[in-house]
Amino acid sequence: MSTIDPNPPSGTRDFLPDEVARRERAFATIRETFQRHGFEPLDTPAFERLEVLTGKYGEEGDQLIFKILRRGEHEATGEADHALRYDLTVPLARVAARYGSQLPTPFKRYQIAPVWRADRPGKGRYREFFQCDVDTIGSDSPLADAATIVAVADVLDRLGLSGFRVQLNHRRALAGLIEAYGVPASLESSTLTALDKLDKIGPDGVAAELTEREIPHAAVRALTEDLAADDLEAVVRERLAGTERGRLGLEELDRVLELIGTVPGGQVGYAPVLARGLSYYTGTVFEVVHEGLEATIAAGGRYDGLIGMFQGQDVPATGGSLGLERILLLLERAETEARTHIGPEVLVTVLDDEAGPDALAIAGRLREHGLRAEPYVGGGSRKLGKQLRYADRRGVRAAVIRGAEERATGRVAVKDLASGEQVTVDDAELTAHLDRLLGS
Amino acid sequence: MSTIDPNPPSGTRDFLPDEVARRERAFATIRETFQRHGFEPLDTPAFERLEVLTGKYGEEGDQLIFKILRRGEHEATGEADHALRYDLTVPLARVAARYGSQLPTPFKRYQIAPVWRADRPGKGRYREFFQCDVDTIGSDSPLADAATIVAVADVLDRLGLSGFRVQLNHRRALAGLIEAYGVPASLESSTLTALDKLDKIGPDGVAAELTEREIPHAAVRALTEDLAADDLEAVVRERLAGTERGRLGLEELDRVLELIGTVPGGQVGYAPVLARGLSYYTGTVFEVVHEGLEATIAAGGRYDGLIGMFQGQDVPATGGSLGLERILLLLERAETEARTHIGPEVLVTVLDDEAGPDALAIAGRLREHGLRAEPYVGGGSRKLGKQLRYADRRGVRAAVIRGAEERATGRVAVKDLASGEQVTVDDAELTAHLDRLLGS
Repeated sequence: MSTIDPNPPSGTRDFLPDEVARRERAFATIRETFQRHGFEPLDTPAFERLEVLTGKYGEEGDQLIFKILRRGEHEATGEADHALRYDLTVPLARVAARYGSQLPTPFKRYQIAPVWRADRPGKGRYREFFQCDVDTIGSDSPLADAATIVAVADVLDRLGLSGFRVQLNHRRALAGLIEAYGVPASLESSTLTALDKLDKIGPDGVAAELTEREIPHAAVRALTEDLAADDLEAVVRERLAGTERGRLGLEELDRVLELIGTVPGGQVGYAPVLARGLSYYTGTVFEVVHEGLEATIAAGGRYDGLIGMFQGQDVPATGGSLGLERILLLLERAETEARTHIGPEVLVTVLDDEAGPDALAIAGRLREHGLRAEPYVGGGSRKLGKQLRYADRRGVRAAVIRGAEERATGRVAVKDLASGEQVTVDDAELTAHLDRLLGS
Repeated sequence: MSTIDPNPPSGTRDFLPDEVARRERAFATIRETFQRHGFEPLDTPAFERLEVLTGKYGEEGDQLIFKILRRGEHEATGEADHALRYDLTVPLARVAARYGSQLPTPFKRYQIAPVWRADRPGKGRYREFFQCDVDTIGSDSPLADAATIVAVADVLDRLGLSGFRVQLNHRRALAGLIEAYGVPASLESSTLTALDKLDKIGPDGVAAELTEREIPHAAVRALTEDLAADDLEAVVRERLAGTERGRLGLEELDRVLELIGTVPGGQVGYAPVLARGLSYYTGTVFEVVHEGLEATIAAGGRYDGLIGMFQGQDVPATGGSLGLERILLLLERAETEARTHIGPEVLVTVLDDEAGPDALAIAGRLREHGLRAEPYVGGGSRKLGKQLRYADRRGVRAAVIRGAEERATGRVAVKDLASGEQVTVDDAELTAHLDRLLGS
């Protein structure tokens, strides 16, 4: 027995109380904000039938799926029939196929839930992590794109993460741009992959990668020149005016930008070469970068081809995903001062064997009054010092102390654990005294 | 593609928005109440290393564990290395072993989380279901037992499930009782199994089962006579006075009963033959029966041998578990009238192509004011009727309607979707008008 490793599985985490409290508080803000924007929650099983998931995430993704062994007499086959959820999009597509007519159109949902990927665990990379998706299914209107982005920005602002930048682009504008440079259509996605790295490797790095990917020399030169321009946006807008796709894409993008207007806590702008890796985007794409972190904390876009996968048809859809683990990390940093505390505020000490019922009753009265309060339930020791140390350990603010004498006289001592000050008051004054002490 | 079954896996469920809302609301009440009682949340991974789970649930339980296939080059072996969480107690025992000194003693935690069991799915029996456990580790005091039961009763009361009965017994009292009837110690657990069925099969059924289990004839006769007694409790108390174990068990039980006193919303009492199936209980055992349902909605007890399983030592522990799925079912029945609604309260219609920015801005203002509000983001149709039908479908209370003329004159029409009444007001009066209409 004692040889069993008590650590959680590699790549997963146990969350102790303070950590759960911080996460739950962020989740509550996210839920409430999305609901204010008219998005409703959806929940799906942790695992899906294997056939629902396989083939949806590319060859590399398929290998990262946690598969569940068949059971009973079939276990010996070594075959899997189910698999853990890998993202929240495929389950949403399944739900759209299953409940289509029962759902309103457009269907606006958010989902905050863990997903599992058998990635090599590393710093900040987990095998079990939470995703938070917000999507609108069944609308091809730029209003749906704009409303998603406004909701995501509002969530970030309400979480206290001001100082973010929402960067927008449009897949058709990108395609038009590449066409304008004279890159053949067959090399479009290869060019996008290189362009998407601009932030990481700079203009020279992009030029080198484009050459390596056998993009025509003239195109690479024109592109590199543009990337070095003082006003990249103006240069790109001029290029886009030269192609039909470019014009149309830019028109829709400008429409979305106009609809969004300004957002509190952040800035919104056109990012001419932003591509977003995922190939399934079909229209507007966006990412949100946090200035302090210089990392993407949210991203999304329009993906009209994906949701209808189980229905065998295209269903327009637009959405976004919060980088929840990164966001929680940012919140944790900001919170080192003001720690979330959800442990008891008041501990009622138990100093002798007769004190039990009295302590339970006092704790009950304090809870009635709205406080988080508990009797000391440790066995054995009836020593005050030990109970006060326990109170301190739990982050308790005040200890209610009542020995035989106080019980007999209907009085009670209250110790402020921050100042160490102790005051004896009448029973009837206890809650008022604690209210003052706790500053509520 | 289109041949893939869009249903969730057998034994699992998709939760659509209204259902998620109901569940989340119950979870919030449970969390808040346990926190008021000084219990803190813990979260552990959905899966554990296989060795952590195997051998903990008996042979039958082991077969119901969902095992996860090894990955990559090891997938072909058909072997499993991880398994989905089967309950919340074994992960708690692992956490106690891993973080022992970092946790306060006693450690009081609750956990609300899904568990997975490969049971044959049936009516009300799921393969993925939520458990809600509350436990106190590291205290052998009856205060800890009493505080757990008070917290569980408070949760049920705050959920609105009044009319419940908390039934208590003590494993040592039961052992003493069986000894008092002259049943050999070797037949103790067999006798308990039969006794535990009293509610289901009645005194005659229990007698038949005892005989079948080769309990001595004299003992069966005495037991059957007692079970038929008008005052079973008095008869049993008299029997228990005759054995050392019986006296001690009853003493501790009476102490817990005294500490609990009365609980709001329910009754508390001694249940002389209550055994609770699980063999790991070592002291107080309890179950909570709801009168309307005549089913157990919560249960628990002291189990001093289990939590130390990974430390190779006994750690005193007491706790309880809410029958969450049954409780949710009871709440659903009670709620058919007052449905939980978390969809938008206000829909801002979009009647022409120019209305977009205006509609987004109005929805933003209404959210600032604290309302759940959204613009209509459906593509294509700009028809009012369609948008009002959508509002109705979403459970929206009021539609904000603004055509070109209202925009030009700074006025806005508000339609009460319950009464059908429509009023035009100045922009500046919109929020006050909606407050009146929504009765907030």
